[in-house]
Amino acid sequence: MYSFEAGGKEKVVDTDVVVIGAGISGLCAAKLLHETGLDVQVLEARDRVGGRTYTVSDPGCGYVDLGGAYVGPTQDRILRVAKELDVTTYQVDTEQKAVSYFGGVHRSASFDDPSLLTNNPLALLDMNNYIQQTEKFSKQVPLEAPWNAPRAKEWDSMTYKEFIDKECWTSFAKKLLTSILGGLASCELEEMSLLAVLSSLASAGGFQMANAAQERKFVGGSMQVSEKIAALLGNRVVLSSPVMRIEQEETVAMVTTHSGQQYRAKYIISAVPPPLLHRILFEPPLPDMKIQMVQRMPMGSIIKTNTYYKTAFWKEKGFCGSALSDKGPVNYCMDDTKPDGTHPAIMGFILSTHAREHCEMSTEQRKQAVCKHYAEVFQCPEFLHPVNYVEQNWMAETFSGGCYAATLGPGVMTSFGRELRNPFCRMYFAGTETAVKWAGYMDGAVEAGERAAREVLHAMGKIPEDEIWQEEPPSVDVPHTPMAVDPLEKYLPSVPQLLYFLLAFLVLLIAVLCVYLL
Amino acid sequence: MYSFEAGGKEKVVDTDVVVIGAGISGLCAAKLLHETGLDVQVLEARDRVGGRTYTVSDPGCGYVDLGGAYVGPTQDRILRVAKELDVTTYQVDTEQKAVSYFGGVHRSASFDDPSLLTNNPLALLDMNNYIQQTEKFSKQVPLEAPWNAPRAKEWDSMTYKEFIDKECWTSFAKKLLTSILGGLASCELEEMSLLAVLSSLASAGGFQMANAAQERKFVGGSMQVSEKIAALLGNRVVLSSPVMRIEQEETVAMVTTHSGQQYRAKYIISAVPPPLLHRILFEPPLPDMKIQMVQRMPMGSIIKTNTYYKTAFWKEKGFCGSALSDKGPVNYCMDDTKPDGTHPAIMGFILSTHAREHCEMSTEQRKQAVCKHYAEVFQCPEFLHPVNYVEQNWMAETFSGGCYAATLGPGVMTSFGRELRNPFCRMYFAGTETAVKWAGYMDGAVEAGERAAREVLHAMGKIPEDEIWQEEPPSVDVPHTPMAVDPLEKYLPSVPQLLYFLLAFLVLLIAVLCVYLL
Repeated sequence: MYSFEAGGKEKVVDTDVVVIGAGISGLCAAKLLHETGLDVQVLEARDRVGGRTYTVSDPGCGYVDLGGAYVGPTQDRILRVAKELDVTTYQVDTEQKAVSYFGGVHRSASFDDPSLLTNNPLALLDMNNYIQQTEKFSKQVPLEAPWNAPRAKEWDSMTYKEFIDKECWTSFAKKLLTSILGGLASCELEEMSLLAVLSSLASAGGFQMANAAQERKFVGGSMQVSEKIAALLGNRVVLSSPVMRIEQEETVAMVTTHSGQQYRAKYIISAVPPPLLHRILFEPPLPDMKIQMVQRMPMGSIIKTNTYYKTAFWKEKGFCGSALSDKGPVNYCMDDTKPDGTHPAIMGFILSTHAREHCEMSTEQRKQAVCKHYAEVFQCPEFLHPVNYVEQNWMAETFSGGCYAATLGPGVMTSFGRELRNPFCRMYFAGTETAVKWAGYMDGAVEAGERAAREVLHAMGKIPEDEIWQEEPPSVDVPHTPMAVDPLEKYLPSVPQLLYFLLAFLVLLIAVLCVYLL
Repeated sequence: MYSFEAGGKEKVVDTDVVVIGAGISGLCAAKLLHETGLDVQVLEARDRVGGRTYTVSDPGCGYVDLGGAYVGPTQDRILRVAKELDVTTYQVDTEQKAVSYFGGVHRSASFDDPSLLTNNPLALLDMNNYIQQTEKFSKQVPLEAPWNAPRAKEWDSMTYKEFIDKECWTSFAKKLLTSILGGLASCELEEMSLLAVLSSLASAGGFQMANAAQERKFVGGSMQVSEKIAALLGNRVVLSSPVMRIEQEETVAMVTTHSGQQYRAKYIISAVPPPLLHRILFEPPLPDMKIQMVQRMPMGSIIKTNTYYKTAFWKEKGFCGSALSDKGPVNYCMDDTKPDGTHPAIMGFILSTHAREHCEMSTEQRKQAVCKHYAEVFQCPEFLHPVNYVEQNWMAETFSGGCYAATLGPGVMTSFGRELRNPFCRMYFAGTETAVKWAGYMDGAVEAGERAAREVLHAMGKIPEDEIWQEEPPSVDVPHTPMAVDPLEKYLPSVPQLLYFLLAFLVLLIAVLCVYLL
């Protein structure tokens, strides 16, 4: 995949800026710098661009996104970049009924109907209270510095699991929330700190936006964004070139790849996930806090699967194809039929512990496990007969380390969060993990890449400091129309409040009866 | 420090086994293989051997251990190796009174007197109960497979902080334990899972053994162990050679260093801390679970300091020099005067959050902060006037990543623990983190190194499988004489038990009174 010839004889390439990583973030950084007239070299370890987006074309599926794929309202940066490159979006089909399957119980309802999960009124109250509290707390987290939240230390010393256990009163809601949220995350709930989760939620703009983040996909696949930027940059993007070493001096930096090729640059932008920085030998060495940081932001555990069928028979049965479940291997699935109705398919995420437990199977075994799962969850044996199956095990990807993004355990955000964007000599840091809005998403990748590029422009004296961070105008094609929030949701009591209320009512009733009877 | 010349022109060196890392573990592996008549090459990234042990000689301090230094009873493997190399031990002076300083309260007492920490009887009961429970739980953790403990999943989904908060009834004991244990660990209590802590405790053989682990030091410093093994191995130990790439084929492995030098071997032993494996580019790539594991075992946060004074004036005041405190920068200190009374000194650990908060200071600033700390903790202004100060910031060490050892957050042990010693093609794994007994200590390093060497011997068909793991006879020089446990400690009630007892007594008293009076 990459060339191993020990080199050193090739001519050193001189450039203004070396960008490490040709994912969306690195390419957006390079594009901006290139458009400013600077010379850039983008070094990519893999033999393809796209990073954690990966579109495969194949007669059996047309094309399929085996990595980051979904976009939604307020993700205005990725929508702007895609539009500029003539990549359009379509809405994922979630019209019909979704399915839930927790603790062996099948339920089906429309996606935004809470009864999809349960009709136990206490559990619903409990879950509503959890949502209100979490949303309230997340609004207290400053996007650009979550470690400065008033209760940062407290929230960061608590796991997300601990928070749910404390916040919920009914064991049913506790179990259900743990299953659902654990199923949506790429690690177990105890592997994340509450502050890290609140910060992600704040970064996405709250529950409503986070829920809408899978509203759309790109026609033709998300990797086109990277491919089209790479086409603009031409031979400035160098594939199969993992960076091995970075030496920095006062005015210049030297980047050496594993093939021995050297690049001399004025500045460097790293656009790789935080733990991958650990793979590079730095001279001078990375500062102490960065050395420790790169060990503390592990990438999540995901196998993404797509299973193809002759027809979208689930739609005939009234199902949109979405299902949530606590039973492995697939935690969460959605319809992935093309917008024109071709290649009927179900996309399924194998996440966290399920991914770790299923990664040693063969692809064929996993395919069978996935189909069996769909047949059980949808109660529909037709799912046992796929016509095609593709998957991507992101945990096996040396140059990502996992997906969706870096996960932060207890204590990490408050101790090491401020290191994420902290420059190191002539080196600046992009990558979706360093974004303020939609961190961990493709949109955050664009924000981070463009911000890092402008940090370099500022360091070169080309733009003032107050131009580094820029607001993004809302997309006109994917407008953000906030759903009317049912005011009831905000004022519904929590379970303990309800119990107090019932108790107070009972006392009052007895008092009235006493007065009346005596 | 290391050579950067892109090479490839040097002759490939052929050998039986390449050992990566010339710390105690790697060198013990190499020594065993060398003694069996095999050809070994030890590749060390630094320009010295010793790894996380580091002894500096200097007229101002004689010699000083700036890394791993302490040994104690039942650490029979490191004691055996040291004895064989003519390295002797001496007992650290803890005869006189130790000091504790928590919440602004000074206390002093002998080291094993619980009143050193508090004389609040409820807090003492509470702490005793915590110790009994923790010890009981730790005995349920199988040393060789902590993930198989009956309650592994439950204990691994809980932080150590959460456990203390749940186990303790009095807020005073809760606060005190958090301070003490947080002060002794190299990360915050919420950064470790309960299972990981129980597993460490089991690996050390329980509280009594763990407490005695700092009983002794090596005369002349601990790095001598590595230096003397390296002297035996001669030019088979190659310094300043960070490994950049490992390619493995069916019968052979090729190891390439950053200088371009290549080593062709039948087997490889890695003796670097788990996160450092991430620094090597593997072909074939590391398997998925190992890629994820190396991102999830971060090294602790430590700055080790030694402060020298003209005389050991603290001893004249009745202090042995040991102090525990919740006030930074030093969490824990001990006398470090040489056994012959020369170079009077106090060794002080700056740990966890204190280390992270103090690492950006200059050495001079840290020295002043440390001396001011001692003056306050011992209430003794003479500490403000040191004659020498040396320190080692292990967080800044690229080729360790931190100290003492790898720390495991919630979820990691159950998901990834079994990957630690799992071989990969022709590669076996040593390093103290992979040890069963005394993992994280020098003794564990010896165990792991020798076990990995015997795994290679077994793979070569030279020894049967049941000889890989070997029991170690007890050291005769540092005998293990178990302290008599006060039986009271085992049968003292917990705080809730005491409350139930008092309540039952009260009910009984009232009943008796009623019978008597009516």
